[in-house]
Amino acid sequence: MENGVDINIRADIPLLEDVIYLDAASTTPTPKPVVESMCNYFYNYNTNTGRGAYNLAVRATKEFESSRKRISKFVGSKPSEIIFTKNTTEAINLVANGLNFKKGDSVVVPNIEHHSNFVPWLNLRKKGVNLKLVEADEYGIIDHSDVLDAVDANTKLITTTHVSNAIGSVQPIKEIGEIADENDVLYLVDAAQSAGHMPLDVKDIKADFVSVPGHKGLLGPIGTGFLYCNQEISEDLEPTNYGGGTVLDVTESDFTLETVPARFEGGTQNIAGVIGLGTAVDYLERIGMEKIQNHSKKLTAKLFKEVNDIENTIVYGSPENIYGIVAFNIDGVNAHDVAKILDEVKGICVRSGHHCAIPAIRHMGAYELGGTVRASVHYYNTVEEIEIFGETLREISKFFGD
Amino acid sequence: MENGVDINIRADIPLLEDVIYLDAASTTPTPKPVVESMCNYFYNYNTNTGRGAYNLAVRATKEFESSRKRISKFVGSKPSEIIFTKNTTEAINLVANGLNFKKGDSVVVPNIEHHSNFVPWLNLRKKGVNLKLVEADEYGIIDHSDVLDAVDANTKLITTTHVSNAIGSVQPIKEIGEIADENDVLYLVDAAQSAGHMPLDVKDIKADFVSVPGHKGLLGPIGTGFLYCNQEISEDLEPTNYGGGTVLDVTESDFTLETVPARFEGGTQNIAGVIGLGTAVDYLERIGMEKIQNHSKKLTAKLFKEVNDIENTIVYGSPENIYGIVAFNIDGVNAHDVAKILDEVKGICVRSGHHCAIPAIRHMGAYELGGTVRASVHYYNTVEEIEIFGETLREISKFFGD
Repeated sequence: MENGVDINIRADIPLLEDVIYLDAASTTPTPKPVVESMCNYFYNYNTNTGRGAYNLAVRATKEFESSRKRISKFVGSKPSEIIFTKNTTEAINLVANGLNFKKGDSVVVPNIEHHSNFVPWLNLRKKGVNLKLVEADEYGIIDHSDVLDAVDANTKLITTTHVSNAIGSVQPIKEIGEIADENDVLYLVDAAQSAGHMPLDVKDIKADFVSVPGHKGLLGPIGTGFLYCNQEISEDLEPTNYGGGTVLDVTESDFTLETVPARFEGGTQNIAGVIGLGTAVDYLERIGMEKIQNHSKKLTAKLFKEVNDIENTIVYGSPENIYGIVAFNIDGVNAHDVAKILDEVKGICVRSGHHCAIPAIRHMGAYELGGTVRASVHYYNTVEEIEIFGETLREISKFFGD
Repeated sequence: MENGVDINIRADIPLLEDVIYLDAASTTPTPKPVVESMCNYFYNYNTNTGRGAYNLAVRATKEFESSRKRISKFVGSKPSEIIFTKNTTEAINLVANGLNFKKGDSVVVPNIEHHSNFVPWLNLRKKGVNLKLVEADEYGIIDHSDVLDAVDANTKLITTTHVSNAIGSVQPIKEIGEIADENDVLYLVDAAQSAGHMPLDVKDIKADFVSVPGHKGLLGPIGTGFLYCNQEISEDLEPTNYGGGTVLDVTESDFTLETVPARFEGGTQNIAGVIGLGTAVDYLERIGMEKIQNHSKKLTAKLFKEVNDIENTIVYGSPENIYGIVAFNIDGVNAHDVAKILDEVKGICVRSGHHCAIPAIRHMGAYELGGTVRASVHYYNTVEEIEIFGETLREISKFFGD
């Protein structure tokens, strides 16, 4: 068995028998132990968390908070620094909506971000906030010195993705973290494409905020995600969802907020999902993050080579820099057609289009081709799958080349 | 078999073998067919919705949108009027954050609301929005003529819960809807305690917004909910979560919003949860809403009588008006202690405390008792369970009475 020793991840993900799944950047299939931990909740203690006096509710609360603890340990934070959200987009918008941005403030942001880490900042323009765009190079990589150049006295926040969802390019998040730290500017890292794919330590990168999906690299269930929020600044963040669980007291004319993170988690949370996410993090740790990273590096290199070796393909990103994702086009062929044929011919699942990152697609010059084809991997993928993908793509390319 | 003909709901909810679950107002246990529809997603087509070209993603999108259709039919709306949220709280905050409230506007709101339908409006005071409180009577019922009195030229929105989560009192939502309609004022009904417990037709009550949890009366999974938003006014509502899926185009300086409801559903949705919720609605329809309503009426009356017959109890709400929920105290005994003993002695699960509705608890005069004990039912409960609850409560009451 190639993948792991005590975990047979392929047996834990039944759909891998039917398809070659190369769309981890969009979402990953949830392994059985994760689904089973949710079923265990649904069938045996499906109750609400909070102040329930009865045993089942106490158990639900305990399991929910235990998940928070394990997740926080996994990313190197305190439990109280983990705010559960339904997805990465909500995590980023919580910061954009919740920080007290003022007219004249600026946000430094790369021009290759996912819409979820771009439109929330663009939307702040209506408050008079300026966007300072940092242009990536031809490989989709940000130079940290360009970030430094964009920072001035009005800069309130620097943000960057860790790994571009459109290109796979890895950004110098530690160097940018140093710049934010030295300039006393807030720093948000979007770890949508890196968390669970490689080790992540939120303190090490000096981030104030890190947005994380539960359902991608972490192999947790769809409908989960979280925001890491540095405790030192969490008091400065205003909640978006006021209501049940977020307040200590309410009179007819006023209210007192709960402590952190409860004040940010209004209403009944996705308890089953969070419990599943805790199980997913345990699952990753049993495999070992280093092992996952090594496997992904190998697959990414192989993936890049397979595509790059085909004459009439355009591959984006630099092979020395990309991670987990390879974006490409067959010259002159619409991206959707390539994806459709890959599926029809060999059940190969890849995304095509703009990947919710139109500025990045424009930057890479792929807008006219209907965006790019994107293949993305995780630990459950095998070298053989990448080979089949390469062979199939070669055939398609030949067909269109004729 | 007492409950239903072709559906054995008790067999579908395993935890009912272990406990007497009287906490539907908090959340309901999810029946097996609902959980199984989610497992089917996780094991067979666990992919992201949207623009995926491959078959599995097309299937996920189709199932997700089919759920939306069935849910919209269930509440009498168009599919495009259903905005999925993670819970009721998010649904209400979407309206509070998204409507363009201006200084001097007012919101008419009862003084017995759940915090989730109270604090978001209270929070608007910082924008200069005034709250016009409507006081409930001693049974926790709002007089619609008091609502009319509170409306003036500055009123932008009237809101009310359908069924109070703290008292179980049913509000005259149709009459209030007429007032909103005649005065050209927006109208939000919080159906957190009624949807799935009784038939609901959003057009019939003339609501512009209805907030609905997936995980309570509807018997859907935890982590789901939605906002019904009248299409005629959805253009006036600003999204809270900008990003993936919410925009048609993005340049480096501007963006164009998607149509409704996509613009409100930023990022990867809880696809498994929404598919489960669709199954849950089918499940309710197979039982029949009328049958559910009749059963719940019978159980509520029985529940009220059991508690009311015990000498030293205080029961809140009027027996002619409450639905699904009975709130009470044993005179002089802390609510939490009563709940704890009910669980320890007979595995009876009831909530105790303020039920995220401190103003309601204050209004009913139960604040000093640590709030109330709240028993709440759904179709899966039996008359026998209510009898055991009554007997046990009688014993507890005697014990404390000595």
